[in-house]
Amino acid sequence: MPQDRFAARRDRLLRQLKTAGVDALLVTSPYNVRYLTGFTGEDSNLVIGANLTGLVSDSRFETQISQECPELDVTIRTSSQTLTEAVAHVVGRAKLSVMGFESRTTTYSQWESLASAVKALQLIPQVDQVEALRQIKDADELAQIRQAIRQAERGFAVLKASLCGDMSEQQAANELEQAMRRFGAKQASFDTIVAVGQRAALPHARPTSTRIGEANFLLIDWGATNFQGYHSDLTRMLATGTISPKLEKLHGVVLNAQQQAIDAIRPGIAGSDVDAIGRDVIAKAGWGKNFGHGLGHGIGLEIHEGPRLSRISKDILKPGMVVTVEPGIYLPGVGGIRIEDDVLVTRNGHEVLTSLPREFALAN
Amino acid sequence: MPQDRFAARRDRLLRQLKTAGVDALLVTSPYNVRYLTGFTGEDSNLVIGANLTGLVSDSRFETQISQECPELDVTIRTSSQTLTEAVAHVVGRAKLSVMGFESRTTTYSQWESLASAVKALQLIPQVDQVEALRQIKDADELAQIRQAIRQAERGFAVLKASLCGDMSEQQAANELEQAMRRFGAKQASFDTIVAVGQRAALPHARPTSTRIGEANFLLIDWGATNFQGYHSDLTRMLATGTISPKLEKLHGVVLNAQQQAIDAIRPGIAGSDVDAIGRDVIAKAGWGKNFGHGLGHGIGLEIHEGPRLSRISKDILKPGMVVTVEPGIYLPGVGGIRIEDDVLVTRNGHEVLTSLPREFALAN
Repeated sequence: MPQDRFAARRDRLLRQLKTAGVDALLVTSPYNVRYLTGFTGEDSNLVIGANLTGLVSDSRFETQISQECPELDVTIRTSSQTLTEAVAHVVGRAKLSVMGFESRTTTYSQWESLASAVKALQLIPQVDQVEALRQIKDADELAQIRQAIRQAERGFAVLKASLCGDMSEQQAANELEQAMRRFGAKQASFDTIVAVGQRAALPHARPTSTRIGEANFLLIDWGATNFQGYHSDLTRMLATGTISPKLEKLHGVVLNAQQQAIDAIRPGIAGSDVDAIGRDVIAKAGWGKNFGHGLGHGIGLEIHEGPRLSRISKDILKPGMVVTVEPGIYLPGVGGIRIEDDVLVTRNGHEVLTSLPREFALAN
Repeated sequence: MPQDRFAARRDRLLRQLKTAGVDALLVTSPYNVRYLTGFTGEDSNLVIGANLTGLVSDSRFETQISQECPELDVTIRTSSQTLTEAVAHVVGRAKLSVMGFESRTTTYSQWESLASAVKALQLIPQVDQVEALRQIKDADELAQIRQAIRQAERGFAVLKASLCGDMSEQQAANELEQAMRRFGAKQASFDTIVAVGQRAALPHARPTSTRIGEANFLLIDWGATNFQGYHSDLTRMLATGTISPKLEKLHGVVLNAQQQAIDAIRPGIAGSDVDAIGRDVIAKAGWGKNFGHGLGHGIGLEIHEGPRLSRISKDILKPGMVVTVEPGIYLPGVGGIRIEDDVLVTRNGHEVLTSLPREFALAN
């Protein structure tokens, strides 16, 4: 991957840091380290300032770093040195006076030992500096997300073709993950939900030994993570028998709510307004109380990131953002319907990145 | 699972907290929450004190908590409330004056908002309170680890039987994970290492598109996580062709190092001494510089936990501890040998929990 992409991201961050009044930022979120450097390993921190891009890691990752991000100032800590001690060394050498740190991913222990190791340094908690940049996907990131979607969709097609009544929810989830990996995914982007019949009423059902054939329908919520760490996230309903008119009706309401919310997606609209548009359709149909979660969330290096589409969201949509749109109706004892797609905000409106039919499809 | 097991663990912790001089402990490590309550979900904190076992979670986990740990005081936070705000509410209601918090898993942001929300409360950083208890496995935990080992070993047997030269490292890793799941594993306990030929010289090689048939041998480092969250961790060498006398010799040295270290395992011995025994065998054979990592680590709810077997370890082995013993010799450009088994410290010595033959086995 060309290194100038990461350099461009770091430049954008450096401009933000100037405004925030800090000389440098200690990046402790592994997702943010990856976003700014391309390094895909763990347990590593980045110290970034005007003349400093210091990656602090350990010997396990030495070869990998030289391949993935050869242009960085790399410090490999010794086995008797903690990560924070090595960071303190890099910070001390750079003679920084005011450093921000990611306060939502830095532990109290890390902060405490850094503060006592570099006493002359003023440490200022920072929130969402890198996360704000990550909301707007660049061309490479969009290609990665499209790939993760393709892996998820191809895997789903295999599962749909091979589903049978004797398979358990857990076996179906395993088949789906295995199929996605065959198409190049690193892994499932979260614990796949396969929920048969009334179990679909639990928004976060975990797969059990319940057999697919025990009811007439099932809900599948799944996604793929590709080898660059980008995620996809979809939900589809499958019919394995005759669907009751009531459930068909619910499905129509959810589909309508989703379509109207998607139609509204464009630069400038508030995440709370997109949520309201989808929510109103469900409320007007009389099921408002049965849709308890937010309408959607950003996807990227994390499976849940900004912007949020929810009642309490303060995010405004901008070109380059990628969000899920996933309304649902849940009836305890009966079942649940959810339909979820991934949508890119474009300069003029939006593009639906997912392409699977949204009907209540008959499984093979 | 019987609830009294978790109550017994909490009682042991409460006695420790008394000694530490705190009224209660805020448990933010999800592994520790699970250990103390049996709750298998995420994003939840536990406040534990003499008359208080408060689990703070969100609506996604309401049903699950009522099934997994019905005896706790459960607080389900609202969607407009952060986890820390809900914790502050529980802490305030309990009128605590001195509370410990897990400083290695509590973020600076959590600590800061808790400190400002409950000003009358003195917050004392705590390290390893629950982790120390977790080092000694109880009967149920040993059964869980044995199950995770069995899942890993059965999966390996399937992979070994189905390996072929055209398979890539990545495909082999996927096959192994799929097989372990078929035998009841939740997932691989870490990213499986399948390293062909000279790639085995990287202690943490990631699977690539390199074909199994491209060299005469491969290293596989893998494990299973069972549905209760317990891990196994093994490494074996497989031959796919004729092994050179040099590599055979290295394998013999590593096997000898491992056996001597295992033979030394008993209550009262220092983790650093077990490491030294294995390390000396390799050093005396002339390969001391080619064994860069520690000899082993504890396994349980985490894949790496205490006690450590390493030069800098200060741990003393006690009955009920379960450790990996995994010496290795790595020759850049040639390859690497590592053999890893899981060993229980018993009252009189030890028991090797893993049972796969340790020879340089010919793949099918």
